[in-house]
Amino acid sequence: MRLTCRYSFSASHRLDTPALSPEENRRLYGKCNNPFGHGHNYTLDVTVEGPVDPNGQVVDREALHELVKLRVLGLVDHKDLNRDIPGFLGVPTTENLAALIERTLKDHWNLAPRLARIRISETERNTFVLEAK
Amino acid sequence: MRLTCRYSFSASHRLDTPALSPEENRRLYGKCNNPFGHGHNYTLDVTVEGPVDPNGQVVDREALHELVKLRVLGLVDHKDLNRDIPGFLGVPTTENLAALIERTLKDHWNLAPRLARIRISETERNTFVLEAK
Amino acid sequence: MRLTCRYSFSASHRLDTPALSPEENRRLYGKCNNPFGHGHNYTLDVTVEGPVDPNGQVVDREALHELVKLRVLGLVDHKDLNRDIPGFLGVPTTENLAALIERTLKDHWNLAPRLARIRISETERNTFVLEAK
Amino acid sequence: MRLTCRYSFSASHRLDTPALSPEENRRLYGKCNNPFGHGHNYTLDVTVEGPVDPNGQVVDREALHELVKLRVLGLVDHKDLNRDIPGFLGVPTTENLAALIERTLKDHWNLAPRLARIRISETERNTFVLEAK
Amino acid sequence: MRLTCRYSFSASHRLDTPALSPEENRRLYGKCNNPFGHGHNYTLDVTVEGPVDPNGQVVDREALHELVKLRVLGLVDHKDLNRDIPGFLGVPTTENLAALIERTLKDHWNLAPRLARIRISETERNTFVLEAK
Amino acid sequence: MRLTCRYSFSASHRLDTPALSPEENRRLYGKCNNPFGHGHNYTLDVTVEGPVDPNGQVVDREALHELVKLRVLGLVDHKDLNRDIPGFLGVPTTENLAALIERTLKDHWNLAPRLARIRISETERNTFVLEAK
Repeated sequence: MRLTCRYSFSASHRLDTPALSPEENRRLYGKCNNPFGHGHNYTLDVTVEGPVDPNGQVVDREALHELVKLRVLGLVDHKDLNRDIPGFLGVPTTENLAALIERTLKDHWNLAPRLARIRISETERNTFVLEAK
Repeated sequence: MRLTCRYSFSASHRLDTPALSPEENRRLYGKCNNPFGHGHNYTLDVTVEGPVDPNGQVVDREALHELVKLRVLGLVDHKDLNRDIPGFLGVPTTENLAALIERTLKDHWNLAPRLARIRISETERNTFVLEAK
Repeated sequence: MRLTCRYSFSASHRLDTPALSPEENRRLYGKCNNPFGHGHNYTLDVTVEGPVDPNGQVVDREALHELVKLRVLGLVDHKDLNRDIPGFLGVPTTENLAALIERTLKDHWNLAPRLARIRISETERNTFVLEAK
Repeated sequence: MRLTCRYSFSASHRLDTPALSPEENRRLYGKCNNPFGHGHNYTLDVTVEGPVDPNGQVVDREALHELVKLRVLGLVDHKDLNRDIPGFLGVPTTENLAALIERTLKDHWNLAPRLARIRISETERNTFVLEAK
Repeated sequence: MRLTCRYSFSASHRLDTPALSPEENRRLYGKCNNPFGHGHNYTLDVTVEGPVDPNGQVVDREALHELVKLRVLGLVDHKDLNRDIPGFLGVPTTENLAALIERTLKDHWNLAPRLARIRISETERNTFVLEAK
Repeated sequence: MRLTCRYSFSASHRLDTPALSPEENRRLYGKCNNPFGHGHNYTLDVTVEGPVDPNGQVVDREALHELVKLRVLGLVDHKDLNRDIPGFLGVPTTENLAALIERTLKDHWNLAPRLARIRISETERNTFVLEAK
């Protein structure tokens, strides 16, 4: 059985890498390279997988919510992804953000079912999925 | 080819198990343990999988709708999941409900493609997926 | 300027009035007359109206959220509308529920802008609007 | 007849007014006062009102789209509302943003029907409506 | 009290008027002038307005559903708006369609509350509203 | 890492196969067999899969958008699926349409990640998924 819980957060970012020239950055990241940044309402789906326990549950949902709020939403909600996240390496694309969230959740995982999948939508037209290993 | 058809139903439930004390039930199920129950608009997605036939279809959709309406919606729509479902064993969590729906559909399955997956959302923030075996 | 804030709650109800015979109740309320009740995820939109203050806001949003949570969601979320609401008069149709919520908010209103409108969706296919007087 | 056309844009902002102390700013704007800002996917609905012309239309929709793209989306999409908008006066709350968009559209309005309403959602839980005068 | 009930239908159309040259038709209606037509999933919202009766209802909802299904959905669902609607005058724009639906509902109106408003979405980005007189 | 990009298009179709009698066509395809056709707003999700490159991206999104617009949307948007698509073989069911889109994209695929999945919704209640091989 898989359970997916949905969370939301709002953050700003600017896509720009020092490995490229200003012109290359503009071409590669398009409008997302605008100097002062912009932002999104991100949708985060966290999927857990495991057997159903005798109480009829695959996970203690309150414990999952606490973990995600403490470790992920506290890190990214109402933040600037370029400047507010300690130790964020690389360009704050949603691909890199998904990988950061997966690592963060795995480092602090204390729940019975396994972490199965991270899904993030930057807008309703772009959704990133990372199967957790 | 997979086709997922979406259905909706409204039902009430209360989460409470005799295996636990009142205090443990309150802690485990939170607001869902409130004595008189509450309810949801459930979204049910039924996925079938199979080859596309010469008429360009993976399933006779009307036959699928009839099966789901007769066997599932007739059982749970506008019902109290604690008291209205004969033979429901255990606490009416959405995990247990998903398993009941999968068993019910498989017991009466008379369609060409196989039943591949059951997905139920209790609210837009909680979605349960059961891969049919 | 109008601001509409959206809230959600889950509740169960059964539509049945002692003024009618069992048969008339069944005919009038249809599936909503089923003996053990059923439930919904209700969406509640609260609209306030007023001028924009020097800080660029039409209302102190945190104060609005606290008022709605304390007076409305505390009353109806994860509850049985037939049995859990003290002083609810009449059948728990969404029409009557909208009127109850409007009266409740007005009785405790302590915000600068006026309460302009209450909107409740029982499902995404039925929406009730009450202009506040 | 009214026609509402929906547009989307992504922008970042930080709510902070020099008229208040840092502590008052934090209390008033909450998480939206975070120093480095954050962002949203805004939904913008523009409503026009007028008679239906002999070609069966209330407005030349392409002309409306061009106007909104040129004057509004070009100004705010993938921008920082604090630093990228020339002449924006005051705190970039969505209330002030709605008023700016209404003024901007009216200053450049060249369509047959009148501009009737501006509606902006910051998230799906907050919607601001300004009736155009 | 206002109640809005939502319905859906799928139809095809082509926008082209004999009053204009082929070139003018192409410019005016754009892609909607393509020779063989195209189609949409339309969303229809019907709003009624009236007092709440002693049974807690503003309208007999089943009666409203029957009226809309018989008179409107039977006319337009899974139809070609250019060729399938007897007596449809003019170009099948959504403006003209809204007016046709309002007239049709008023001609057969047999419910206690008044018909207050017709709203049709051609796509989620275009919504037409007609206040019933 | 998987990225799903969402696109929309509007098209009309009629389901009818010469292999069956008129009566059998009516029974098999139901309302979708209506003589003059009808239409839908289709939602198309294209999923790509691959490693994240040093610039933090799984795909050059602009290149993906251009490919989908040129090869797929140019073929089907605002078109009649029965008469406007050269070389479309068979009945224009959404199953056959999904297969056509997958073949078309694979024939012109020039992106670094692999094409992983095609998903099409005819309405929000019917979704077809084809895993790309």
